[in-house]
Amino acid sequence: MAAPGAGGDGETGWLERLLVGDRVALARALSALEMEGGEAASVLRTIFPRLGRARVVGVTGAPGAGKSTLVNAYIVELRRRGQSVGVVAIDPSSPHSGGAILGDRIRMTQHSGDPGVFVRSLASRGQVGGLSRMASRAVDVMDAAGRDVVIVETVGAGQSEIEVAEIADTKIVVTAPGLGDEIQALKAGILEIADILVVNKADLPHARRAAAQLEAMLDFRDSAPWRPPVLCTASIRGEGIAELADAVEAHARSAAPAEGSRGQQVSPRRRVQRLLSTIAAERVRRALHEAEDRRLADICEAVLKGELSFTEGAERALELVHSLPGP
Amino acid sequence: MAAPGAGGDGETGWLERLLVGDRVALARALSALEMEGGEAASVLRTIFPRLGRARVVGVTGAPGAGKSTLVNAYIVELRRRGQSVGVVAIDPSSPHSGGAILGDRIRMTQHSGDPGVFVRSLASRGQVGGLSRMASRAVDVMDAAGRDVVIVETVGAGQSEIEVAEIADTKIVVTAPGLGDEIQALKAGILEIADILVVNKADLPHARRAAAQLEAMLDFRDSAPWRPPVLCTASIRGEGIAELADAVEAHARSAAPAEGSRGQQVSPRRRVQRLLSTIAAERVRRALHEAEDRRLADICEAVLKGELSFTEGAERALELVHSLPGP
Repeated sequence: MAAPGAGGDGETGWLERLLVGDRVALARALSALEMEGGEAASVLRTIFPRLGRARVVGVTGAPGAGKSTLVNAYIVELRRRGQSVGVVAIDPSSPHSGGAILGDRIRMTQHSGDPGVFVRSLASRGQVGGLSRMASRAVDVMDAAGRDVVIVETVGAGQSEIEVAEIADTKIVVTAPGLGDEIQALKAGILEIADILVVNKADLPHARRAAAQLEAMLDFRDSAPWRPPVLCTASIRGEGIAELADAVEAHARSAAPAEGSRGQQVSPRRRVQRLLSTIAAERVRRALHEAEDRRLADICEAVLKGELSFTEGAERALELVHSLPGP
Repeated sequence: MAAPGAGGDGETGWLERLLVGDRVALARALSALEMEGGEAASVLRTIFPRLGRARVVGVTGAPGAGKSTLVNAYIVELRRRGQSVGVVAIDPSSPHSGGAILGDRIRMTQHSGDPGVFVRSLASRGQVGGLSRMASRAVDVMDAAGRDVVIVETVGAGQSEIEVAEIADTKIVVTAPGLGDEIQALKAGILEIADILVVNKADLPHARRAAAQLEAMLDFRDSAPWRPPVLCTASIRGEGIAELADAVEAHARSAAPAEGSRGQQVSPRRRVQRLLSTIAAERVRRALHEAEDRRLADICEAVLKGELSFTEGAERALELVHSLPGP
């Protein structure tokens, strides 16, 4: 005989259920943060003391590399190991790829009957920065709700992926044979952020060659104290997935313990710090890029004349940022 | 009977010859800037009053798109139109692609007998930022030496390309059929900077489809006042190259006149301003990313608790940059 009226189901009741991993409360918390309404503040205050236990694994790579299938297989493996999983799937900003992404999400529903798997897709609302901030909030909520592993899945190799990568403790970069030019493109930025490299669709020809190319590239990189392993997977058949899960655990053990964290992952505070550094940098770039300002013009002329180096000029320009209009 | 000792060939003689386009003086000036020795200052002082006449055309795109062949064909077309050309070729940082790049440079020597074409390759010395600064200086020297068009050619789609793109008045992005995933990758960042899109190797199957895909992507972009044309070229046969040269001229005419410039291109001052904005942004990102600072930690905690938004947190973090150690 429960008491009528506002009881455990009132204002705070659902927040308590969030902290014990209730899926309905999880969904409500994420919606509250997306809406940025009054409940968002309650959610953030509630989860703050509970942050920092989940391992955050980022998965990124080119379209066509079979990333979603890989993530699915990885989830199955994590469940087999008794770990609960949260997935934050970032949909890219382009409306054109809607079909493929929708397909990915549908495949993800193979886990929909499993309370140990919680998937949330975040669609871009046209603002790259907004997406990584929301992803960070979603990771926090899943972390506080007790998920052992939170997977952040992104598509592509642009600024948004590099930004989202700031969130992850372990970053997996996926490619596949036949994306030869993709491997070239990997050089350009994504390779640098990888903790683990995966050649997926390893049943296709040239998979070993692609893996060897990646290994050769790594030879030229300073990889102490962690050299990213190059793994071959055939995720449709589940091949190589246990090795992938092992590699993530090995990376977790290898990482230097972050100050004050209970595990060996990047602390939530450090994660926010990295995102803030990216957001602040973008703020500076936009403020200076097209600014009309006499002092800035003088700095640029001094650089052209060789009176200032580019580094000195940038330092002086930075001093002006606060007095320039915001973007 | 020339007078012995220091005459027209002395300290200032070669600088005068630089300004009338002498190739030996051009090479010496570029070397002086790369060495950053005492002559660098003289070069910059000398060329400063002569800057701002060249049109700077950036060419970038995926490896395998036939970019160098396209640039070669474009040079031939420019020479046919009576324009003198300077080329700044940026070699990417990876030592692995040395073979391909060397091949490109060898092909470029088809112009070596033509005094109207001057090619300079800049190899990375491991520092991305350094390359775009050097490219900017090289553009200035070629500009002051009277080149009508300076082409800046880069490989790949990473940060360095986006940085180098800041230098160009007109940015050409090259792709090719069969690089289907490349087209996906184009969405991620490079597409946004393109003034002209080229589908090269248009004699291959699916060229028209690739062009149609790019057009469809552009439909979703706000393209006023300039919608990038999508051109098909078969640069080995010289097809579509005249149209490319026409498109560059059309873009030059369409651009809003920059303040105080003699043409319609980005002024050298504005070009430096854009580079400084990129360098300053990177300085901020590095200073904040891993900093150990109590004030910064407090800001991050406030963001985690929802007491500050990410935007507010970034603004506060930016105020700390000057008091943090430089990278």
